[in-house]
Amino acid sequence: MSGFESSSSLPLRVAIVGGSGYAGGEFLRLALGHPHLNVTQVTSERSAGQPVSLVHPNLRGRTNLKFRKAADLEEADILVLALPHGSAAKRLSEFEGKARVIVDLSADFRLKDAEVYRSVYGEDHPTPDRLGQWVYGNPELHREELRGATRIACAGCFATSVILALYPLLKLGVLLPKDIIATGLVGSSAAGASASESSHHPERAGSLRVYKPVGHRHTAEAQQELPGRFPLHLTAISTPRVRGILTTVQAWIPDGYSDRDVWSAYREVYGQEPFIRIVKVARGVHRYPDPMLLDGTNYCDLGFEMDVDTGRVVLMSAIDNLVKGTAGHALQSLNIAHGWPETTGLEFAGLHPV
Amino acid sequence: MSGFESSSSLPLRVAIVGGSGYAGGEFLRLALGHPHLNVTQVTSERSAGQPVSLVHPNLRGRTNLKFRKAADLEEADILVLALPHGSAAKRLSEFEGKARVIVDLSADFRLKDAEVYRSVYGEDHPTPDRLGQWVYGNPELHREELRGATRIACAGCFATSVILALYPLLKLGVLLPKDIIATGLVGSSAAGASASESSHHPERAGSLRVYKPVGHRHTAEAQQELPGRFPLHLTAISTPRVRGILTTVQAWIPDGYSDRDVWSAYREVYGQEPFIRIVKVARGVHRYPDPMLLDGTNYCDLGFEMDVDTGRVVLMSAIDNLVKGTAGHALQSLNIAHGWPETTGLEFAGLHPV
Amino acid sequence: MSGFESSSSLPLRVAIVGGSGYAGGEFLRLALGHPHLNVTQVTSERSAGQPVSLVHPNLRGRTNLKFRKAADLEEADILVLALPHGSAAKRLSEFEGKARVIVDLSADFRLKDAEVYRSVYGEDHPTPDRLGQWVYGNPELHREELRGATRIACAGCFATSVILALYPLLKLGVLLPKDIIATGLVGSSAAGASASESSHHPERAGSLRVYKPVGHRHTAEAQQELPGRFPLHLTAISTPRVRGILTTVQAWIPDGYSDRDVWSAYREVYGQEPFIRIVKVARGVHRYPDPMLLDGTNYCDLGFEMDVDTGRVVLMSAIDNLVKGTAGHALQSLNIAHGWPETTGLEFAGLHPV
Amino acid sequence: MSGFESSSSLPLRVAIVGGSGYAGGEFLRLALGHPHLNVTQVTSERSAGQPVSLVHPNLRGRTNLKFRKAADLEEADILVLALPHGSAAKRLSEFEGKARVIVDLSADFRLKDAEVYRSVYGEDHPTPDRLGQWVYGNPELHREELRGATRIACAGCFATSVILALYPLLKLGVLLPKDIIATGLVGSSAAGASASESSHHPERAGSLRVYKPVGHRHTAEAQQELPGRFPLHLTAISTPRVRGILTTVQAWIPDGYSDRDVWSAYREVYGQEPFIRIVKVARGVHRYPDPMLLDGTNYCDLGFEMDVDTGRVVLMSAIDNLVKGTAGHALQSLNIAHGWPETTGLEFAGLHPV
Repeated sequence: MSGFESSSSLPLRVAIVGGSGYAGGEFLRLALGHPHLNVTQVTSERSAGQPVSLVHPNLRGRTNLKFRKAADLEEADILVLALPHGSAAKRLSEFEGKARVIVDLSADFRLKDAEVYRSVYGEDHPTPDRLGQWVYGNPELHREELRGATRIACAGCFATSVILALYPLLKLGVLLPKDIIATGLVGSSAAGASASESSHHPERAGSLRVYKPVGHRHTAEAQQELPGRFPLHLTAISTPRVRGILTTVQAWIPDGYSDRDVWSAYREVYGQEPFIRIVKVARGVHRYPDPMLLDGTNYCDLGFEMDVDTGRVVLMSAIDNLVKGTAGHALQSLNIAHGWPETTGLEFAGLHPV
Repeated sequence: MSGFESSSSLPLRVAIVGGSGYAGGEFLRLALGHPHLNVTQVTSERSAGQPVSLVHPNLRGRTNLKFRKAADLEEADILVLALPHGSAAKRLSEFEGKARVIVDLSADFRLKDAEVYRSVYGEDHPTPDRLGQWVYGNPELHREELRGATRIACAGCFATSVILALYPLLKLGVLLPKDIIATGLVGSSAAGASASESSHHPERAGSLRVYKPVGHRHTAEAQQELPGRFPLHLTAISTPRVRGILTTVQAWIPDGYSDRDVWSAYREVYGQEPFIRIVKVARGVHRYPDPMLLDGTNYCDLGFEMDVDTGRVVLMSAIDNLVKGTAGHALQSLNIAHGWPETTGLEFAGLHPV
Repeated sequence: MSGFESSSSLPLRVAIVGGSGYAGGEFLRLALGHPHLNVTQVTSERSAGQPVSLVHPNLRGRTNLKFRKAADLEEADILVLALPHGSAAKRLSEFEGKARVIVDLSADFRLKDAEVYRSVYGEDHPTPDRLGQWVYGNPELHREELRGATRIACAGCFATSVILALYPLLKLGVLLPKDIIATGLVGSSAAGASASESSHHPERAGSLRVYKPVGHRHTAEAQQELPGRFPLHLTAISTPRVRGILTTVQAWIPDGYSDRDVWSAYREVYGQEPFIRIVKVARGVHRYPDPMLLDGTNYCDLGFEMDVDTGRVVLMSAIDNLVKGTAGHALQSLNIAHGWPETTGLEFAGLHPV
Repeated sequence: MSGFESSSSLPLRVAIVGGSGYAGGEFLRLALGHPHLNVTQVTSERSAGQPVSLVHPNLRGRTNLKFRKAADLEEADILVLALPHGSAAKRLSEFEGKARVIVDLSADFRLKDAEVYRSVYGEDHPTPDRLGQWVYGNPELHREELRGATRIACAGCFATSVILALYPLLKLGVLLPKDIIATGLVGSSAAGASASESSHHPERAGSLRVYKPVGHRHTAEAQQELPGRFPLHLTAISTPRVRGILTTVQAWIPDGYSDRDVWSAYREVYGQEPFIRIVKVARGVHRYPDPMLLDGTNYCDLGFEMDVDTGRVVLMSAIDNLVKGTAGHALQSLNIAHGWPETTGLEFAGLHPV
């Protein structure tokens, strides 16, 4: 017995902690359109007392909620933590008293191994014994564990784009255990809502800027989730887009394999997935995945192309970093956890042109 | 008795004629999410036989429809015409045999006066006697006429942004009958889906280009719809955005009036409107209407500011040209015509940031 | 006798005060390519001790200068002040001891009338008796006064675009003394180099945002410089561009006048101007002025179109706000002041496409 | 004896064949500012008879040249061929009668080996015996051969960004002969001046689109020019920029080597290069190469970062595809060929911000 009444006529009360940032704001947008959720509280230290629509102007006319301080947090059914990395773990006991279900959008509970956490984040995890209790919030890989889950640590955005491109191929042995290189082109919203010199419009608008050539923290996340042992290398580049990640993954197919095997692997593993589309079209403008088409949607579009002479395969993966990379798969995970139809509240198809 | 069964369990069959363009594609996107509509046909001469998702890649996985030729059009309940200006009027009888309800997204049936039509479009109207049968598809001004309507001529996008900004103020006498100047900043999607030298990305991406300084055709439309007689002047400028229109309207307040009267007029006329928001915030980044926030939504955001020394008032109006300027108010009009809740299928709140 | 030796073999020493901002950086870029100028000092309180190329990365390999504090300023021949508005006037005596020639890029010395200054800037001018000593740094209007000038107050960027569009027409009586409305579409660099919430890339990249509907401070500047008395109204809108202003001016032609008179007026007044081009082409993509084509150049492109039915004329004016709107006309003014060929150091033609 | 009189008082006559495209237009812009060149003819079949400034609006007021047909080509000193790939080779004898020096901007004469040409371009080379007469127009690798050269085949833009990043490291043995992967982010101008569906602004403005995941033709060019034998893999992605290429190259350092060796190699090989800058800054916004800073310049900015745990090195390379990738190194090559100072006509420093 799961304890979740999916057919309950009363929607569940949601509190969003750290709701003035982009991740919290996006979860709020999605939750406001969800028939089984009722957002009752949104916290922000900086904006406490102000209408949330002042900070999230797309929600004008959609909600009368005002921000409150986290100290004023009251009980809820679900707590969504959208805090700076490190905060959720440090304040975990405080939050656990407030709701039965906690969804964390930060990196705090994604890694299972406290040693790995230390090597990646440079400090000891505050609650290492609790790491095992969290389900990694990637519905495609952890659907079964998510059913009835009460602790969900949502996957990182760049990690998600890498994991979803590679998972079926590694699982089914379609790739060599050879250096895999993922290059992510990332929009400016991934760096958050705080203004900085590097986000100043004149410095950023026309920029193509490598911001993490080596040492990206999501490497550990992706390696934890992907089957097998192989060297994985990530490079992240800023683009002039606001939303979206386009990741190209360079990998290697064993002798005797072809792009049919890539097709088969994707179909076998993702054939029933509601939010994964294989995009590989012979003609027209939109032949491969493109984040332009995904703003506001929970899709991950995947494509690939093979170089028959060398066995190199180029995988392509596109998501909206704030939806499928953050708030969207958080909601998809919650849908699974509560037994609701998985696409509930995530129906937006995306715009074209835009 | 209207003849519309709004509670019908069977959705109405919709055929979109000219569905490979941006207007038709946007109506298709909206209609696919509408509980009382079932899109059964989409025509395109150029793309006949191809899946609609090849041309509208945002609809991948959402529909299996293929384009057909207009010659193969079968019966439907509702015909949505998304043809180049001039085509709908010339082929009206052909279309009238196919469905009881016709919605035209072009300019063909917007003007009531055949003389005005000739002076604006430079040729005689093919069916001048029929002009009076069409309702101008602007829900805020023509809600009552739209109930039960079977011929709806949807308002032009720039015209809509001008009309909605001015209507309450002219109706309630808050403006002087003095030269009114509207300057529209328009995204590239307004020029349609056909590639041209001026839409070539390197020529357009960074451009701010006046494309219609004087003589804009929507002037006649706006003058037809707005109360009173006054000189109206339109200037249209291309911007690097894809969607959206931001219109500033320069007008003049009579002595003794103040911005309170503008507030009151907007509230009185638009107080119950589901898709009009008054945006005038004292602080923060988003103090006035901004099309950035409206991509994919059916909102018209209105704002204003007054220069007390001169009586000048600057009205600001933002819409998504493809939604509130085209397919959205078409659907809103259909909702009204059929007695469905007016916001059905138009619930998307918009994204921030984006 | 002017006291300037234009044929001097020794270049003049230039010190830029407040050189870490965009205006100072742009003047530095231009001055480094000028055969008669030698930039010997650049001050910045925040970046003192650092190479200027760290802040102005386009100058890597072009200069080894380091920022120093203003307190360490040594003697120079020319002082270019690129300080926040208000600072130059308050510290004038400090600067006057350092160089014979002072060019101010701020608004401090543009207005001649201390009363007007107070009403516009909300405080008393610190040195009202000195206002008369400064030449308004607009070469097209004040070329004669600029010869030999030692105090140059460079014109504001939006004001420049308005003044250059209107000056010949007002001077030669081609416009009615009726409400003139100027709408400026402005790039983000005009707001300076300091990051803020409103300049945060995700909030600004796709934005079309009215930031000054009424009450723009450049109104007073433009009215001071333009002949005759008429009501002038300015509205300023942010665009996604980084550089550039496109201004449309709506004005009125007397009965009996036509667009030939506009042509004639522009030709008569600007026929010999090296940096003004009349852009009005019958066909092609680039028929009117467009700031896209002007990045880095000192041009002001002017165009116009007339509505014969109403006598309305739409003037169009495009500049790079940091060049013709700031550093470029500062250098042009210095060239005139010293008797150097007026285009020296300002030869860049601009890029296409870009 | 070279036969070139670099001190000649008479500038050399230049004819640009195919001058209505972006490559030809950019060469024209640069040549107009060059003291030893006099552009006397520009051909365009489509625009014959029209002023060049109609097609290249940045050159308004800079030249009165009109396009002529190639059939009307008269003698010149230097012929610059800016034709679609394939045309120059087919019409070589026609052009050789017109001028002593020919610079080809296409791919026709870049490859030395006719077999390789066939495998890359899918057809036999029209004049295979002539391939050996052309110098590959990359000044950094072929400076000595360029002195006095009369046939210059300018390097491809993406190839240039790859070659310049790798050459010193491969030459000095700082890289393992292991799979090297280059990912190029390319602006829309690289696809030329002809409008197409994929260049239609609404389809391209927000796009991040892989357009050549495998099989890029520049692979052969880069392999021909780079020392040693190693597998080289190229992937090319469209970005919303108009100009510029940012290439990241993933490569591998032998055991015992470090990033100091990368520094040393770059310094040793490029220490005296006027147009190569190593950009690797510890702090600030602009820490690595960024094409944003290079519009209009002839620089290639290079950077790198090393992952000490894995021996992976990420090289970064930024150029303006139309300048250092096309017209700029063409002019630099001509400067070398004629013994003029190498930077002549290429002094523009680039803009910031922009």
